[in-house]
Amino acid sequence: MALIVQKYGGTSVATPERIKEVAKRVAAVHDRGDQIVVVVSAMGDATDDLISLAAKIAEKPSPREMDVLLSTGELVASALLAMALNHMGYKAISLSGAQAGIKTDSSFRKARISKVEARRIQKELAEGYIVIVAGFQGITDDMEITTLGRGGSDTSAVALAGALGAKVCERLTDTDGIYTADPRVVKEAKRVAELGYEEMLELATYGNKVMQPRAIELAQLYNVPIYVASSFNNNPGTLIHGDVSMEVRNKVKSVALDMDVAKITVVGVPDKPGIAAAIFVPLAKAGISVDTIVQNASINKITDLTFTVTRDQMAEAVKAIKLIARKIGAKDIASDNKLGKVSIVGTGMQNTPGFAARMFATLNENNINIELITTSEIRITCIIAEDRVKEAVKALHKAFEVELG
Amino acid sequence: MALIVQKYGGTSVATPERIKEVAKRVAAVHDRGDQIVVVVSAMGDATDDLISLAAKIAEKPSPREMDVLLSTGELVASALLAMALNHMGYKAISLSGAQAGIKTDSSFRKARISKVEARRIQKELAEGYIVIVAGFQGITDDMEITTLGRGGSDTSAVALAGALGAKVCERLTDTDGIYTADPRVVKEAKRVAELGYEEMLELATYGNKVMQPRAIELAQLYNVPIYVASSFNNNPGTLIHGDVSMEVRNKVKSVALDMDVAKITVVGVPDKPGIAAAIFVPLAKAGISVDTIVQNASINKITDLTFTVTRDQMAEAVKAIKLIARKIGAKDIASDNKLGKVSIVGTGMQNTPGFAARMFATLNENNINIELITTSEIRITCIIAEDRVKEAVKALHKAFEVELG
Repeated sequence: MALIVQKYGGTSVATPERIKEVAKRVAAVHDRGDQIVVVVSAMGDATDDLISLAAKIAEKPSPREMDVLLSTGELVASALLAMALNHMGYKAISLSGAQAGIKTDSSFRKARISKVEARRIQKELAEGYIVIVAGFQGITDDMEITTLGRGGSDTSAVALAGALGAKVCERLTDTDGIYTADPRVVKEAKRVAELGYEEMLELATYGNKVMQPRAIELAQLYNVPIYVASSFNNNPGTLIHGDVSMEVRNKVKSVALDMDVAKITVVGVPDKPGIAAAIFVPLAKAGISVDTIVQNASINKITDLTFTVTRDQMAEAVKAIKLIARKIGAKDIASDNKLGKVSIVGTGMQNTPGFAARMFATLNENNINIELITTSEIRITCIIAEDRVKEAVKALHKAFEVELG
Repeated sequence: MALIVQKYGGTSVATPERIKEVAKRVAAVHDRGDQIVVVVSAMGDATDDLISLAAKIAEKPSPREMDVLLSTGELVASALLAMALNHMGYKAISLSGAQAGIKTDSSFRKARISKVEARRIQKELAEGYIVIVAGFQGITDDMEITTLGRGGSDTSAVALAGALGAKVCERLTDTDGIYTADPRVVKEAKRVAELGYEEMLELATYGNKVMQPRAIELAQLYNVPIYVASSFNNNPGTLIHGDVSMEVRNKVKSVALDMDVAKITVVGVPDKPGIAAAIFVPLAKAGISVDTIVQNASINKITDLTFTVTRDQMAEAVKAIKLIARKIGAKDIASDNKLGKVSIVGTGMQNTPGFAARMFATLNENNINIELITTSEIRITCIIAEDRVKEAVKALHKAFEVELG
């Protein structure tokens, strides 16, 4: 008898019919003799509906009250799933974040889980119950309701799997696993059978929207295997775990793309100590999240500094940078929000030379100009014109076909 | 500085616009220097929508899960009202039943409040907050979410007012106070300025739908004055309290009607000890709630026994009675579900003779046949044909006009 944690996303529980389908999948796990804890997201657009309701009341609703409001979406879905299982004759019980013992700090809208007090869940499991936990929410030590922000339900599921010592955290959604590239862009893209945590982290950070980096980091920390699959079919999915077999490691795993890139260049910056801090500390204070930073080699103690942000933050970033540029004596500011990113990811490239060369050559053969390059040990990213991104992904997928195989 | 508890019903908070209107009314209380705790119901049809969602999942949803589901309606309304007040610049905080310390037994769907642990509310009030409490819900000692059943939010409000020692519990809804008769039936009906608890209880039990008897009983127990008024205007309402002035007591307060009456007569019952128990114990066990019971004078040790039930329970009651009638040797069963009740209520009739005679004479003058009569110290009820009820209410309102004045 193993303990399984399953997490179902919003589209998987979008309608009463879908909830009944999910109940059948959950029951099947119970029938084969395993214990199961299920984490659910809010039904379909429920969270968006609550957000627009709040927008009709206040432009900037209080984060504390937003969390009370938003937490109801997952409560509804969890109660309905428990009802569906009860109706099928199974012992099932829904638990709120508070009841499930998911303790968080008090950063409303983006709370971090501090600990999981799993006694109640363990008691219900021991009594033969299927336990349904409302995802995305927790409770502070002062009994305040919090939500976990983006990727919150995934984080709930991984945290519970870690605390309960589950065999696996199955993440069930409307897409089959992780692909060698976005199947909507590259028809030949294939499902990846397994990935290491670092590989999945790089993919998630560089444009693969299947999972938020946060849940993957937590899974890596507690060494919880995540199985990503579809709740709409029985196709095999992707296992994300720590001990990827050696042979599989020696490959490029996936080509990722990200269209949401804007670039800002501060031109003619005096190259002296503290200049980077002078630019980026005020940006951080203004709540602007800077992604890639590149500083050109300095000529006559003058350099250019380029960084990227998401497009919705570009206007604000430019505004902030104008003030800063004056103070530090920079000559000019240039910006471009028609950019995208293409990345190749895989632990294989860590010890094998030539991946970067092959990537640049492939882009060059296709007359795609590279604006910026950033790399990690297991990833190479090129920032290019937005309208060439899909072409680049297709070309790279083809160029690295053997590795992706 | 006084402490006021206000309760707003579903129509009062049905839309974001209505919630903003309610926020203004609440703010006005705070502005005049009083402390205020607000209890809210779910928005408009929210509870009905949740019930129909559950009906799509299971025919008989688990009561525990229904309570998790239904409790979300009041959470949403309370968070939105707190947001509206925050947006207006007021310190306001929403609390769930659990956070507000509303402890109940574990009878899901119809929980009874066992105690109110008001520390959290008192702390927030002391810090200058307007406290918004989600009505209709509580929590058991095992942290299980419960709902209070019919009239639940009224009960929450009265219980909080009692526990906090509030000056008054203001119940704000879409109707102005209590009238001398239903204004839809009797155009001349006037608002009653004040009523005793017993009078309101009799009215509520005999057809006035403004409040459930349960909340009134609780108010009487803790001597909490209830002020019933409209949230849609500033018209004066009705004060329900214990110390109604002597002069006001000497009157008929209101004429009530109830269309939901069915009558069953067990004909030719042997009149011997234990016969009433033989009939009514099995009915109670079948979950049938019997209202009025009348036993005719016995002739030759044979009598007729008549009782009334609500219409939706008639078929079940007749079925149960058929089995019982055979056992006790009754001759026949007769039933009629086309009946209604008309009642006059007022502590005035307690010490003054002639009210009953005048009521019967008025009905007789209008050729309305009386099927059954039941009385309490402060109420006289006649059960008559359904299609004569409105006529009877108008005639009685006219006949008792001086007292109603």
